[in-house]
Parts: sequence; C-alpha cells; structure tokens
Amino acid sequence: MEQARTLAAAVDETRQWDRLMALAKIGAIPGDGVNRQALTAPDREARRLVIGWAREAGAEVSVDDAANLWLRLEGAEPGAAPVLTGSHMDSQPQGGRFDGIYGVVAGLEVICALRDSGIVPGRPLEVVAWTNEEGSRFAPGCMGSMAWAGTRPLGDFADIADAEGVRFADALATHLAAEVDLPHRPLGGRPHAYIEAHIEQGPRLEAEGFDIGVVTGIQGSRWFTATLTGASAHAGTTPVSRRRDALQAAVRAINALNLLMDDPADRLRFTIGSLVVEPGSSNSVAGRVRFTIDLRHPDGAILAARGDAIAAAVAEAAAPVAAIVEERFNAPPLAFDDGVLHSIRSAANVLDLRWTDMPSGAFHDAQLVAAVAPSAMIFVPSHNGISHNPAEFTTASQLAAGTRVLGSALLARARLPN
Amino acid sequence: MEQARTLAAAVDETRQWDRLMALAKIGAIPGDGVNRQALTAPDREARRLVIGWAREAGAEVSVDDAANLWLRLEGAEPGAAPVLTGSHMDSQPQGGRFDGIYGVVAGLEVICALRDSGIVPGRPLEVVAWTNEEGSRFAPGCMGSMAWAGTRPLGDFADIADAEGVRFADALATHLAAEVDLPHRPLGGRPHAYIEAHIEQGPRLEAEGFDIGVVTGIQGSRWFTATLTGASAHAGTTPVSRRRDALQAAVRAINALNLLMDDPADRLRFTIGSLVVEPGSSNSVAGRVRFTIDLRHPDGAILAARGDAIAAAVAEAAAPVAAIVEERFNAPPLAFDDGVLHSIRSAANVLDLRWTDMPSGAFHDAQLVAAVAPSAMIFVPSHNGISHNPAEFTTASQLAAGTRVLGSALLARARLPN
Repeated sequence: MEQARTLAAAVDETRQWDRLMALAKIGAIPGDGVNRQALTAPDREARRLVIGWAREAGAEVSVDDAANLWLRLEGAEPGAAPVLTGSHMDSQPQGGRFDGIYGVVAGLEVICALRDSGIVPGRPLEVVAWTNEEGSRFAPGCMGSMAWAGTRPLGDFADIADAEGVRFADALATHLAAEVDLPHRPLGGRPHAYIEAHIEQGPRLEAEGFDIGVVTGIQGSRWFTATLTGASAHAGTTPVSRRRDALQAAVRAINALNLLMDDPADRLRFTIGSLVVEPGSSNSVAGRVRFTIDLRHPDGAILAARGDAIAAAVAEAAAPVAAIVEERFNAPPLAFDDGVLHSIRSAANVLDLRWTDMPSGAFHDAQLVAAVAPSAMIFVPSHNGISHNPAEFTTASQLAAGTRVLGSALLARARLPN
Repeated sequence: MEQARTLAAAVDETRQWDRLMALAKIGAIPGDGVNRQALTAPDREARRLVIGWAREAGAEVSVDDAANLWLRLEGAEPGAAPVLTGSHMDSQPQGGRFDGIYGVVAGLEVICALRDSGIVPGRPLEVVAWTNEEGSRFAPGCMGSMAWAGTRPLGDFADIADAEGVRFADALATHLAAEVDLPHRPLGGRPHAYIEAHIEQGPRLEAEGFDIGVVTGIQGSRWFTATLTGASAHAGTTPVSRRRDALQAAVRAINALNLLMDDPADRLRFTIGSLVVEPGSSNSVAGRVRFTIDLRHPDGAILAARGDAIAAAVAEAAAPVAAIVEERFNAPPLAFDDGVLHSIRSAANVLDLRWTDMPSGAFHDAQLVAAVAPSAMIFVPSHNGISHNPAEFTTASQLAAGTRVLGSALLARARLPN
C-alpha cells in the first residue's frame, strides 16, 4: 500500500500528457483529430517515439511476427511470468488523440514511474502495443491480439486488402522491414495477468462523477443483417394498396424491433446503423432494403432471448414483403478475472479515487487476451462520451488517475507468487 | 364512323408487334429488356429503322434542333394545322420493350393503316419521337418536348452531363451530325390536337378488365427532401437514452407521414423511395439521414393540404433530432382537353372496347405539349403494372386496340375545321 502510493506519486501527469500530445501530432487532422491507421508511415513514426522513450526508461524493446510492439522492464524474478499491460496505437481515420494510444502511454508511464521511484516489481512488467485494433484499414480489428492469443492464425489475414488494394501481408512485411533493427520475439505467451487502460468512449463516468471505471467484462454482441425483398414499382402509377414496398416494410420491422428491444434500465444497446435501399430512386417504390441490427447486453440470457426473437419479429412486421434475417456475429458476454478486478478496485481505494464497476460496450484487445491470461480493464472518463471523433477528450489529470490505478494494480499483481 | 371502322380494320396487329420486337433487339438486355438511352448509338439505330418504315409508308421525315424526329403524312388540306401523335423512343437503363416506343410505333401504324385503307385525313398527320423523355442519361426528362413547347430553351440543358461526363450539347451535336441527311425543321408549332398512346405502367386497366384508359389528366406532384441531423455515436457504448439517432428519427418521421398520407380511397400516391444513412456503419449510431418524399394526387387541393403539412409533421416526429424539409418540385394537376377526350371515348365506343377514364400517375411528353395544343392520352394495359423493368409486357392485341382507338380519334380530329 505504501509502495502503491509511492508509485502513484511518481506518475508524472505532465510527462504523460506531453507524450500524448507529441504522438497526436503524427497523423494530425483538423479539429485536434488523428488519422494514424495500422501499419502506415505515421504508425511507424509514432512507434519510433515510443521506442525512444522506452529505451530511455531502461526497457527492452522487441517486435513479434504480427508487429505487436513489446516494451519490457525486468523484475526481481526475471524468469517469472510477466504482468502485461498495453493497448493499441492505431486510430480510426477520423479518430481522436486518446483511443488506444492512452493505454500504451500509460503502460510506458508506469515503467518510468517505477524507475523514477526506484521500485523493482517482483515480476517483469511488459507493455504491448497491439497491431490493428481498429480494423478501419484492414477489417476485422484486433488482428495483433488475435494472432498473439492464438484465436486465429496470422496467415488468415494475409489476403485482406485495404481500400487501395494493399494486402495485409504486404503492409505487414513493409512494416517489419522498417523495424528489422528491433529484436524479434515469437507470437504467444502466458502472462501472469493483463490489465488494459482505455478511455470509456461513453458518457457514463463523466455523467455520474466517477474517476475510474472498473471494467468487469465486455458486453455480449449479436449482429444481424435483415434483407427485405418487395417489388420495385413506379411511384406515380402504383396504388399504395398494391405495393410491396420494402422500405415501408423496413419501417414496420424497426417499429417492431423497438418494442422488442425496449429496456427501461437502459442497459441494452440496440442500433440500426446501416440501411440501404434499392433502387433508391426518389420516384421508385423500394424493391429491396437491407439493414443491420447491432444488439449488445452484459447479460447473456437477455442477449439470447432478445436476439433469438429478432427474425420472427422482422418477418411478421415486414409481411407481405419477404424478410430474411441472418446472424453474422455472436459473442457472448465476457467476464473479466475477479482477482485482477479486485486488484484494480483496491488500487482505486488506496488512491481515494471514485470508481464504479461497469461493462465495456466496445470490443478491446483485452477480450482476446482474456483467453490466455487473467485480465481486466480500467476506464477513464470520455468528455461527453465522444469517441472515434477528433473531439474525443479526457483531461490530463483524469488520464494520470487512470495510470496511477493501473500502476498500483500491476504492482500488486507483480508481487504475487505463481 | 364507317371510316373509323375501316381504319381500325387496316391496323395490322402483327406488323405493329413485329416492329416493336425488331426495335427491342436494339439495345436488348437480359430478360427481354431494353437499354436504349437518349442520343446513344442504339437510339440512332432504332430511329433508322423507324425512318425506313415511315418512308416506305410515304411519310416525310425531318428532325429539329432538339433531335425530335418527325414523320408527316400529308392531308387533304396541306396548309392546315396537323393532328399530332407520338411519344419517345429512349428507354430506362433497365427498361422494357413498350414504354415510349409503343406510342411512336402506334403513330407509324396509323400512317400505314391510312395508306393501306386509302383514307386521306383532312389535316396532315404528324408523328413525333421526343428526345430524352426518360431523363435517365441526362436529367431532367422530357427535354425534347420542353424545348419544342418553349417551356425551357434548349440551351438550358447544354451543360448537363451524363454519368460519363458527356455534355448534353455534345451528345446532341454528335446525334444531329449522324442525321444530317434528314431535312431539318424548326422547333415549335401549333398542332390542332395531340394524342399520345402509352402503356399504363400501372395495374389498374388489367385488374379491372379495361382495354383502354382515357387519360383525363396527369396528377399533380410534389417532391421533397428531408434531412435529419442527429449525432453519430458508438453503438456499443452509448446508452439508447442518450442518443440522437437520425435513423430512429427518420422512422418516427415516416410513421407520422404514413398517418398524414392515409387515404382510404387509395388515390394518393406517397412514396419514400430514397433513404441514405451516414455514416452507415453497422456499429455506429446514424448521425444523418436524408430521405425523399414523392407525393402525387389528381386533386390540387388535397395535394396542397397534405404537402404543406409535411415539414411540420417531420420536424415534430424527428425531435430532438433536427429536421429540414425542402420542396424540390411542385407541379399542379393537369387536366387534358375535353374535346380530345371526347374523340377518344367516341372512338373506343365505336370499336366496342371497354374503356375507363383515369388520371396518369406518371409524367409524359403530353404534359408539355398540352401547353400549346389541345391534348390527351390513351393508355393500354400493363401486365401486373410492371414498367421500367425488362418484364414490362402488353399483348399484341392490347397494343393493336390502343392503336385503333388512336387512329380513329386522330382521324376524327383531322376532320374538324379550324
């Protein structure tokens, strides 16, 4: 507890903020935003800054086959399984200055604070920057953590191309060639614990006056596509009673889904984010509409019940227009490790910070790491909940508070025997 | 009445059908469809076929500045204002074999039937193929009839480009150069009457067992665009209660419009044909939605009342999402000429055909011609009401019945003194 306070005092709010601002200049876009997509020249330039700072702090730098970047501070027991933290450095094309990069800089700040305060952790501390979490250049996201955790082999992603037709395998080879000076390490590993710090990307912590979100898990997600096939017809000549209007059928289906997804507790997330009309001409009745359904909930039973009811609700509401609902993704809720969560809550208590348990609404690399190591996450507030947007903002002191909790919790985990 | 029956007997169902099928081979697309857009090579090739048939029948061929194609059969009074018929030869990109081209071939068939039966009409008979009625290559449609009727000067269309960037003025010049062998005539004129034969493009005649639609007018149209601006947000992290979801606002607005546009008489045509979502990502709350509203009714008072109520209904339903509704087009209902309508009804009666009065739901060149000459239209049934589609179909005998009514009505109008 004393060591935790010492480490927290050594976390340098200004140093961390200045580093984030220096990184935000690389790939800067108007409105304080950042466009620093995975395996691009700005991504490499940003990594070089981090590598320089890490080496100054005495960390060993290495890179693996997926271009995940590793910073390691040796512990008192060099052979012990390390405690791991980190996040990602790539951004959305119209991204902000904190999403992902904060978790990497926070891990680096913990390394610096350990050195500055003379504390040597029991276990080694590793900080990782996972490759391509966002998935905006190469879909899907979380490729680096998937390949590392063994969820999918790296080769699965080889032929995925970006908007310019560049293959992931070629972008990765170009990138690794530029980092050939770094020591190489194999994919995979069994860290003792993993803690990822991240901005909330939602409004709750700020709105409810908390410093820290103790992320107890990642809510479950089910993604569907509904295809409604009616008959296109002339808008001027076809009586409304004789139409099979796919857009009107989609409106009826969404009305039905809104009833099905009603949740007074406001925990269920139900989103129609994409809706495409064919032929999409102002004077033609819609012949076909495709729309997406994004359903998320922390409770697997609710997610199952509501999700399973979608197809019938859409079909009934769309009739006589024919409806097909396909499920494209189904990830059950993930619960993070109780022991790691306990270490985070304890650290927040010691530091007199206001914290709350909360699920994560978004995916994170921690979801993949959780399969191979006890894991959890720490959230810091996002101003107005804005994220994936240049206006994304968290104050320097809120970011430092998160880093202090992260450092204390990592230190606690590093002390434990195997 | 005897002459009308003689002319009707001379209308050759097979000749007319074979000509339509020969023309359908030019620009043929799968499923019996046609892609013969305005001022393209297939358009020119089809016109050459028509020109050849017209000359065989003794008609004089000419072309005007807008590339409207004219076929003239001299009457007993060569100096008299002619009776005019016709339609257009261009098709939609995924069009059928009858829309437009039927009215031109039917006019030509009347010329042939007059020659075959030895009847000389009092007034000259002219058949016109208007340029670019569809507006699918160069928007708006009806350019040829607009330029001829003086609704808009031809030069207004010069810089309008097609999807490949070709300017209308350049496409027109290319076309006219290919028809430089044809005698040229000026734009404009004062025909004694205009009758346009066309397929219904709706299901009513077939469904109700009529041979002929006596088109009493063209219903009025009002076109609007609604823009709803909410705020894009992360679908996983943003509580539903905190969203300003533009797509959900659009659904509420369409629900409200459906109530506003309810019409038990089923005469009102209300269509949302285009709806575009931004950013349109499955895991982002919609930040902006634009949708079109196409409202039509034969009664100007109803059209005015319902149309004027749209903006407020959308704004109220969309709140707290901001809504802007812009009116882009407002054409009041058009009533065709009573005298010409009488001639059509009389012709149908003489020929023992089942006819009904009906408004046209779609625009036609007749809408422009009506400004300078007493006008009306004749509809023949469309199988299942399908149009602007390769499956568009009308039987040879239905087409011939329409041509017989057209010929008889034209003959009646040609007999009248000035």
